[in-house]
Amino acid sequence: MIWTLKDLLGLEDLTREEIKFILDTVASFKEVSSREIKKVPALRGKTVVNLFYEPSTRTRVSFEVAAKRLSADVINIVAESSSIIKGETLIDTGRNIQALKADIIVIRHSCSGAAILLSKHIDISVVNAGDGWHEHPTQALLDIFTLQEKLGKIDGLNVSIVGDISHSRVARSNIWGLTKLGVKVTVCAPAMLIPPEIEQMGVRVTHDIDEALKNADAVNVLRMQFERDEQGAFPKQLEYFKNFGITRERLQKAKKNILLMHPGPLNRGIEISSDVADGPQSVILEQVTNGIAVRMAVLFLVAQGRDKNKK
Amino acid sequence: MIWTLKDLLGLEDLTREEIKFILDTVASFKEVSSREIKKVPALRGKTVVNLFYEPSTRTRVSFEVAAKRLSADVINIVAESSSIIKGETLIDTGRNIQALKADIIVIRHSCSGAAILLSKHIDISVVNAGDGWHEHPTQALLDIFTLQEKLGKIDGLNVSIVGDISHSRVARSNIWGLTKLGVKVTVCAPAMLIPPEIEQMGVRVTHDIDEALKNADAVNVLRMQFERDEQGAFPKQLEYFKNFGITRERLQKAKKNILLMHPGPLNRGIEISSDVADGPQSVILEQVTNGIAVRMAVLFLVAQGRDKNKK
Amino acid sequence: MIWTLKDLLGLEDLTREEIKFILDTVASFKEVSSREIKKVPALRGKTVVNLFYEPSTRTRVSFEVAAKRLSADVINIVAESSSIIKGETLIDTGRNIQALKADIIVIRHSCSGAAILLSKHIDISVVNAGDGWHEHPTQALLDIFTLQEKLGKIDGLNVSIVGDISHSRVARSNIWGLTKLGVKVTVCAPAMLIPPEIEQMGVRVTHDIDEALKNADAVNVLRMQFERDEQGAFPKQLEYFKNFGITRERLQKAKKNILLMHPGPLNRGIEISSDVADGPQSVILEQVTNGIAVRMAVLFLVAQGRDKNKK
Repeated sequence: MIWTLKDLLGLEDLTREEIKFILDTVASFKEVSSREIKKVPALRGKTVVNLFYEPSTRTRVSFEVAAKRLSADVINIVAESSSIIKGETLIDTGRNIQALKADIIVIRHSCSGAAILLSKHIDISVVNAGDGWHEHPTQALLDIFTLQEKLGKIDGLNVSIVGDISHSRVARSNIWGLTKLGVKVTVCAPAMLIPPEIEQMGVRVTHDIDEALKNADAVNVLRMQFERDEQGAFPKQLEYFKNFGITRERLQKAKKNILLMHPGPLNRGIEISSDVADGPQSVILEQVTNGIAVRMAVLFLVAQGRDKNKK
Repeated sequence: MIWTLKDLLGLEDLTREEIKFILDTVASFKEVSSREIKKVPALRGKTVVNLFYEPSTRTRVSFEVAAKRLSADVINIVAESSSIIKGETLIDTGRNIQALKADIIVIRHSCSGAAILLSKHIDISVVNAGDGWHEHPTQALLDIFTLQEKLGKIDGLNVSIVGDISHSRVARSNIWGLTKLGVKVTVCAPAMLIPPEIEQMGVRVTHDIDEALKNADAVNVLRMQFERDEQGAFPKQLEYFKNFGITRERLQKAKKNILLMHPGPLNRGIEISSDVADGPQSVILEQVTNGIAVRMAVLFLVAQGRDKNKK
Repeated sequence: MIWTLKDLLGLEDLTREEIKFILDTVASFKEVSSREIKKVPALRGKTVVNLFYEPSTRTRVSFEVAAKRLSADVINIVAESSSIIKGETLIDTGRNIQALKADIIVIRHSCSGAAILLSKHIDISVVNAGDGWHEHPTQALLDIFTLQEKLGKIDGLNVSIVGDISHSRVARSNIWGLTKLGVKVTVCAPAMLIPPEIEQMGVRVTHDIDEALKNADAVNVLRMQFERDEQGAFPKQLEYFKNFGITRERLQKAKKNILLMHPGPLNRGIEISSDVADGPQSVILEQVTNGIAVRMAVLFLVAQGRDKNKK
């Protein structure tokens, strides 16, 4: 397969083969970060712009490290409140960045569809680093890569996603990616945090955490973003922990080697107990490590895809 | 000609020959950004400090990209409110940056004269990235370079500058530069946005936009910074657009190939209509592209000038 | 001596030999910043993360310049208010940065002991860039290096530290370092700004500035951080200047070649008069220059120390 896509906007629009191709590419970049000199010249002389309309230290840093290990020049544009580029439209900002002869824009935006909109108006590559509740494809790719690396396969696995599914781009991208790869996905949350008709995405729904853990090969625990719950729709923190928190007791009833994943940052004692987060089944920090390799692979591929488009 | 100036503070103090020499140097750097590997070693091992007392994502990013394509190390110091270097004076800050063995300070400051003041107290190079209402020489240089590139010449052209001339460093630097190069400059704005005795700078004044467009080879449309109009001196936005906004109808009465320039960011529907901004006469994005080449040339020249001074 | 420490947390725990070894290493890095191409490949392909929970443009920039001159990739994480990594614990943040395969964390934190805590939970190197009132070892090392460079020796010198000793990590690190190297240290401040039992650190206490200056080979003048004096414990600024400010008159009664040091940024007219700060005895800007060399040496050594630990 030859990669010809100039953008990575989400997993919904990728084929199973395209997702597998990315995962194969990740493996070859993972080794770079374990070298003495963690640097390859793949994107030397290229300019990567991190365009972050939402603050996100973790994702920005991960993309910045990945781009620098590929020898790219990295420019960070972080919108603090409304100061970014004085009220310019997103499309004008994108066209200006293109006019700088940048090669890739990594965009994080609070509006669903922002990355797609941007990609339609510029010729350079766009990588979606999270758009509203819509998609966060590199997070899902690193989750899937970690699953595959740890369990040796991906097809036929049972994976449960626990937490606020309604407002989670991480959940959506995981569901698109996992179901395409033959994973049986269960989502688990209080009813008010499950979007209506989610079953049409090909997932099973349960409100019972023990049911979600039963037979699961891995559980992906979402961060409960209580700080964003402006409408008071969330359960109380203690109540949530009591009913949905991942604890040692609950894991003892699950498969012995169940993998525990979390996109970070952790709310210890809310969606997950501390001992479990630091326990032997947790692969949370390995997800972070794999995030670098995933982003290196994605930056590399979209740059290649754009070159193919130009020819 | 051998470049011996260690600073670029404004266009008022440069000779016609010096401005032409910079423009010639720009041309040779423009090609770099169209290469596969957009990088030359001209400033390898040099340190460029972006010292921004006013927020300006666009200008900071343009200088940062330019410096990185020259292989310089770039340090960004952006003053958020008053936190910058705990109330130290500008001169002390400059001396400290010099003591770091930095090579070039790119300074943006809200006080007119800040760059000149700084340059008098340090030996390393100072590039003015905008000081109060005074000068913004790299913006004017990229405007002039774009004019010359598009129209094949500069001497004898008619250029109109439309907008808030009183508070515009872009206008001032353009007027100094253009008049030295033999351009006939017209400024056009409501009376309250034209500084008194501006004719002494060698420009023609009109308050009639159609008059300003008539016979113009290019029109440089300034951003109306309504967000800065604390005294309520500005006309209403709709009224401004009606009387001074650049629209298709108005351009139809101008020269057929009139160039449309704007320093960005655009206020669509205020100083310029959207169709015109995106239309065939607009060179707004080419200005952005040329901005990189101009800043590469300027950083390169001042570093050279400083070396000459040391010998 | 072979350096085997992976961290630099403070000078209290270092031996005299270790401190001297660092100082010797500094000398070899100082030359780099006077080269035409200020760059060595010592940390090429390594990732240095500046993790700053307190704003500090000066220290961050000094570490960033130092790391870039060593060819490292540098990532800045600056906590603006509470946005940093969404309430994650320091240890979780540290583990995440380690999982990115970063090599060195440079940490500035308002809590004493933060750097030590972090170092106990991760295997990568930790450099303390200031923790609460506790230690600021690279500042003390650059002070000591400057003393030694200017006076040709360190053992047997008399050094006075003037200012708010109670809340000063700079004072604490200087006292640990200087006393280990055989310097007789005097601290001088109003009684309320001297911590109880400070004599146990091996220093002499005086509240008389003339007494502190008498026989001193150097005086290190601390910044009076009036902006932090929430409890109103400080004397009035004018009163402080009158009683403790370093002036030409006071220096005339001191040793003829007394060195004047200050960690910056200066409060001119508060702890020091302007003419003295800019006078012939001042080595304030040389301290800044030496800060780069010290930080290059420290980053280089801890990276080496970590490699030794791994084997």
